[in-house]
Amino acid sequence: MRPSGRTPDQMRTISIESRFTKHAEGSCLIGFGETKVLVTASIEERVPPFLRGKGEGWVTAEYGMLPRATHTRGNREAAKGKQSGRTQEIQRLIGRSLRAVVDMKALGERQIVLDCDVIQADGGTRTASISGAWVALRLAVDTLIEKKLLTVDPIKQKVAAVSCGIYKGTPVLDLDYDEDSNAGADANFVLTEDGNIAEAQATAEGETYDEEALLRLLRLARMGCTDIFAAQAAATGR
Amino acid sequence: MRPSGRTPDQMRTISIESRFTKHAEGSCLIGFGETKVLVTASIEERVPPFLRGKGEGWVTAEYGMLPRATHTRGNREAAKGKQSGRTQEIQRLIGRSLRAVVDMKALGERQIVLDCDVIQADGGTRTASISGAWVALRLAVDTLIEKKLLTVDPIKQKVAAVSCGIYKGTPVLDLDYDEDSNAGADANFVLTEDGNIAEAQATAEGETYDEEALLRLLRLARMGCTDIFAAQAAATGR
Amino acid sequence: MRPSGRTPDQMRTISIESRFTKHAEGSCLIGFGETKVLVTASIEERVPPFLRGKGEGWVTAEYGMLPRATHTRGNREAAKGKQSGRTQEIQRLIGRSLRAVVDMKALGERQIVLDCDVIQADGGTRTASISGAWVALRLAVDTLIEKKLLTVDPIKQKVAAVSCGIYKGTPVLDLDYDEDSNAGADANFVLTEDGNIAEAQATAEGETYDEEALLRLLRLARMGCTDIFAAQAAATGR
Amino acid sequence: MRPSGRTPDQMRTISIESRFTKHAEGSCLIGFGETKVLVTASIEERVPPFLRGKGEGWVTAEYGMLPRATHTRGNREAAKGKQSGRTQEIQRLIGRSLRAVVDMKALGERQIVLDCDVIQADGGTRTASISGAWVALRLAVDTLIEKKLLTVDPIKQKVAAVSCGIYKGTPVLDLDYDEDSNAGADANFVLTEDGNIAEAQATAEGETYDEEALLRLLRLARMGCTDIFAAQAAATGR
Amino acid sequence: MRPSGRTPDQMRTISIESRFTKHAEGSCLIGFGETKVLVTASIEERVPPFLRGKGEGWVTAEYGMLPRATHTRGNREAAKGKQSGRTQEIQRLIGRSLRAVVDMKALGERQIVLDCDVIQADGGTRTASISGAWVALRLAVDTLIEKKLLTVDPIKQKVAAVSCGIYKGTPVLDLDYDEDSNAGADANFVLTEDGNIAEAQATAEGETYDEEALLRLLRLARMGCTDIFAAQAAATGR
Amino acid sequence: MRPSGRTPDQMRTISIESRFTKHAEGSCLIGFGETKVLVTASIEERVPPFLRGKGEGWVTAEYGMLPRATHTRGNREAAKGKQSGRTQEIQRLIGRSLRAVVDMKALGERQIVLDCDVIQADGGTRTASISGAWVALRLAVDTLIEKKLLTVDPIKQKVAAVSCGIYKGTPVLDLDYDEDSNAGADANFVLTEDGNIAEAQATAEGETYDEEALLRLLRLARMGCTDIFAAQAAATGR
Repeated sequence: MRPSGRTPDQMRTISIESRFTKHAEGSCLIGFGETKVLVTASIEERVPPFLRGKGEGWVTAEYGMLPRATHTRGNREAAKGKQSGRTQEIQRLIGRSLRAVVDMKALGERQIVLDCDVIQADGGTRTASISGAWVALRLAVDTLIEKKLLTVDPIKQKVAAVSCGIYKGTPVLDLDYDEDSNAGADANFVLTEDGNIAEAQATAEGETYDEEALLRLLRLARMGCTDIFAAQAAATGR
Repeated sequence: MRPSGRTPDQMRTISIESRFTKHAEGSCLIGFGETKVLVTASIEERVPPFLRGKGEGWVTAEYGMLPRATHTRGNREAAKGKQSGRTQEIQRLIGRSLRAVVDMKALGERQIVLDCDVIQADGGTRTASISGAWVALRLAVDTLIEKKLLTVDPIKQKVAAVSCGIYKGTPVLDLDYDEDSNAGADANFVLTEDGNIAEAQATAEGETYDEEALLRLLRLARMGCTDIFAAQAAATGR
Repeated sequence: MRPSGRTPDQMRTISIESRFTKHAEGSCLIGFGETKVLVTASIEERVPPFLRGKGEGWVTAEYGMLPRATHTRGNREAAKGKQSGRTQEIQRLIGRSLRAVVDMKALGERQIVLDCDVIQADGGTRTASISGAWVALRLAVDTLIEKKLLTVDPIKQKVAAVSCGIYKGTPVLDLDYDEDSNAGADANFVLTEDGNIAEAQATAEGETYDEEALLRLLRLARMGCTDIFAAQAAATGR
Repeated sequence: MRPSGRTPDQMRTISIESRFTKHAEGSCLIGFGETKVLVTASIEERVPPFLRGKGEGWVTAEYGMLPRATHTRGNREAAKGKQSGRTQEIQRLIGRSLRAVVDMKALGERQIVLDCDVIQADGGTRTASISGAWVALRLAVDTLIEKKLLTVDPIKQKVAAVSCGIYKGTPVLDLDYDEDSNAGADANFVLTEDGNIAEAQATAEGETYDEEALLRLLRLARMGCTDIFAAQAAATGR
Repeated sequence: MRPSGRTPDQMRTISIESRFTKHAEGSCLIGFGETKVLVTASIEERVPPFLRGKGEGWVTAEYGMLPRATHTRGNREAAKGKQSGRTQEIQRLIGRSLRAVVDMKALGERQIVLDCDVIQADGGTRTASISGAWVALRLAVDTLIEKKLLTVDPIKQKVAAVSCGIYKGTPVLDLDYDEDSNAGADANFVLTEDGNIAEAQATAEGETYDEEALLRLLRLARMGCTDIFAAQAAATGR
Repeated sequence: MRPSGRTPDQMRTISIESRFTKHAEGSCLIGFGETKVLVTASIEERVPPFLRGKGEGWVTAEYGMLPRATHTRGNREAAKGKQSGRTQEIQRLIGRSLRAVVDMKALGERQIVLDCDVIQADGGTRTASISGAWVALRLAVDTLIEKKLLTVDPIKQKVAAVSCGIYKGTPVLDLDYDEDSNAGADANFVLTEDGNIAEAQATAEGETYDEEALLRLLRLARMGCTDIFAAQAAATGR
């Protein structure tokens, strides 16, 4: 049995509160159970140096964890003077995942920055971040369309992410903190609405795993993402 | 007239949502109008090196602004690799303000860290942080009392803070962003419930001001803090 | 009685040695008793990015403490790789204080940087820095006037600063180190020659203070600044 | 056709020069074609703080790229003052991969640091690093066994890594730089000699991919790792 | 007797493997006995800001030591976030030494960066770096000449460097690690092929030395550099 | 003719004001003409980690340049967040030079830190620093002897430093800024009172130099150091 009493293929409650802050062009507070992430999308009418003058846009992400989002307080990265390797790895993953569903030519020479700040952590912060980032991005792009700054929608489809793992020998969906810290394998899948994979990352923790396990985890992820796509649709009307 | 339509001595709506996050020993989401700050209080059973073995506690604070808390996105301090002078100045002020109402001997050899993270900014983030930090601190100390780790309450009284300034020649209470960016003088007062001053900071912006103006701003601050003390009482039952 | 034998309203000896270094456009070595600060004013024919092309000038300050300016050696900030929060807070205060008496339009699109380096510390380094910075600024601006690069004097009036505090229950002027480390309240006032306030900062140390105490400290500061204005006049012939 | 003329399932020439440097307890220069990585294994008789006194060892890795390992010179990370997110992501991956095949209890309370420095880059630097790190680790552990500091071999089996990707629509093994910069999907698999997976990472570049593609890439990786295991065996006599 | 059995005026074996890496315009792996340094020369068609538009070129150097180049592992400078004083001192010396034999006007407005990375250290890493840097520079400039980007050879002559020291009272040439860590004086000479001195640095270690000793060390250095010039000629055909 | 009108073997006026600051155990303001350096010696009853428990002392130095010590303002290293390579090279040289005349066993397990801060620069700041550091060190050690914390004097003899160079073809002593920026070779010699050499550094600037030139520069340095030793004696009564 899972500590939370969930069945192996059961997601935690997904909650998405759109337009959580007033300044950002797009934003939401996404919850996967007790994990809560505030995501904002900021439109900037400029692109990174390597893209200047190419007529293409860019989507990038930053990730942070409030110091007391966790069971015990962690040091503030701004005070330490650098972002951890974990933080950088996660923000690179979020950026890549969102770029997988955006047509950069259609976006035009502008950048959208997705800030994912974890208010409360209980496992799955990176997958909640990716799933919430799509909502914030969608809302931000909608403002560009409303203002007729875009005529073609640059977002090709939905993207969502969920973690899966092998907990006490059983593949389970959407690990919470209790499960995550005891999982035998830990995977994160970023899936698109058309059923494809944008990113798969599966790491052995303690014991290595076989191809069959990888496939079972992927199938669980598909089930979870179906739920997330529905929540994203409800939150954005798309 | 003030941009918000408020009278000169009128605070914005004060909202305090206690226990906003589940891991911190004390927490709240405090709002002064559209300014929203999440404050957590973390109890650590150790003190900074300069206090070790002295039987005294410590209260300190850290402050941060989410990148898109503001009208335009600011760079993330963790990514820049350092905290700005403004951030450091504010977190030092918050720490001093709270220490003014805590009996460090009674607290015992432990530290309470107050993290103030601005979710949305519309002027007055440092005063909202101080006012909310008292709530988080109060709730955290209450858990120590409930667990009988403390027998004497180390919190001597309430402390609150509010900004005042001279807007278009008129002293006004609790500046919002529109006023703040046009104020002729900008003051922050940290007051205790017994009517005393823990900290007064009044800066000329553009024009210097006279003693009479300083006193009028202080009197406005007293009115504002009375409202904040009431909200703190409602939020903590103290 | 004060440790130094001074009366409560007595300043330490103010010494100002103008043109202490030969390269800077303006400079002085200012002493408030044993506190000695070297201030240089450097004219740069450019302004920070946010002012470019606006036809306005800028005045800013940096502050440093030589490692052995103090009783025991402090670590060199350049070696630690960052300026402390205290350093940043002080240099921001110095810059604001000087800007309060400068007409930026009249200064034209150039920047004056005030470097305040504490050679020896005995309390009041920030107030000596501000008072000396006015002298260095005055001398530097005079060179611009002499060279006919300026036709209108951009300095509107003198500005000076002094600390006051409550020592053993008595409000006293110009705290030295022995008093400062035992003061019940610690205030810094930045006053202009016309009797106005550019900045007031009063912090409770240990005990909070009341409005009456704030006013008494302010009145002491007025007395001290009168002496400093006279010393500034003697040092600059203005 | 692949730019190199290789068949889709053909690895580049694998070269491993054992004991390339004289100070390290274990070392090799590994080549996957023109990609050359120098790996050293350093035994330290201490463990990170979180493991002290637990009787367990640790294996960790650091990764670096010489400035001119690449087509155009990159800035030296030591001069920039920080490691890039890419560097941190890779060194975390290398460490995890090697830990997957080490019994930390059997290793005892000591740490082995694997330094992977890229001398020349032509795609696949992280997979060559992992594969070479196993060799360096094996040689270092062998010195502990020879000195009778270990009686049980803590290395459970071989581990190797290889990249695969979809190049012009065809799944291919062991991407070189020309292929890597044009691949439609980019995957890295870390496999153990018993046929299991230690880590799978597959990223869409430009286009997302389906489950079938993931499986085909995994099968190519198995073929490549078989070759690498043979080269590791030849280089270590194990 | 020297630990290595060499006579006092005997160099270690000098080995130079030209064009060690394929991307750099010039490169070599230079060995002074067991000391091995990889040097690459990178041509960049731009110069530092202080030279822009002056029609002159620049030659600069960076130096690094792989973490396990030494007997015990040293921390990676990129991970520590800064280069040590020793590293900076050495790379400044290498740059100066090479600039002493280059005609910057003839080089034209381009920069050549010499990266010296120590693969294995056994004393004399800075002198091997300088001597190898000349080879890499020569090869890189030759590519410019071959491409007819240069018509006049900007390299005026050869430059080489060697260390000397007083070991157990006897002046000896080309100290290895065992000698270096016990030398009574430690000198590095950078000499040009025409018999002149580009840089002399002689440091007392433990005991100061006299003028006669300085001259004897210089004469040993001349002997050593003669050997190095020959090896440079063999490696470059110049 | 030299710009200053000095003869080739003429030092600038050497001024040493002992005990310039009150907190340091030893201090002086040393002037070589218009170059002015404040040196303090701080005694610390602890040694760096590598010396703990060995019964030996340590002498080290730090160097800094006030931002406007120079013709145009330089950036403050504390604000930039790191010390330049030049700064580190100089402070390493100062420390080595002083250690050459101190018996570390006799000093006992304590450290003396020499802070050399350039108030005004006109060439020769490193040589003035070394020469002044000996004075500050001497005064600090004298306080240990007076307090009977030391019975044997750990300072073996005087040490001084001076620069020499080839200016318009003529070897000259004690270069000032005008000469330094045009010198054909630039040398710094650190000499001991017994006529020996603690450190010799001679760098070609533009043109290389021969052995004869090196010797002529060394002889000039001997003449200059004779003057400095006399000034040190006058300043310390030793």
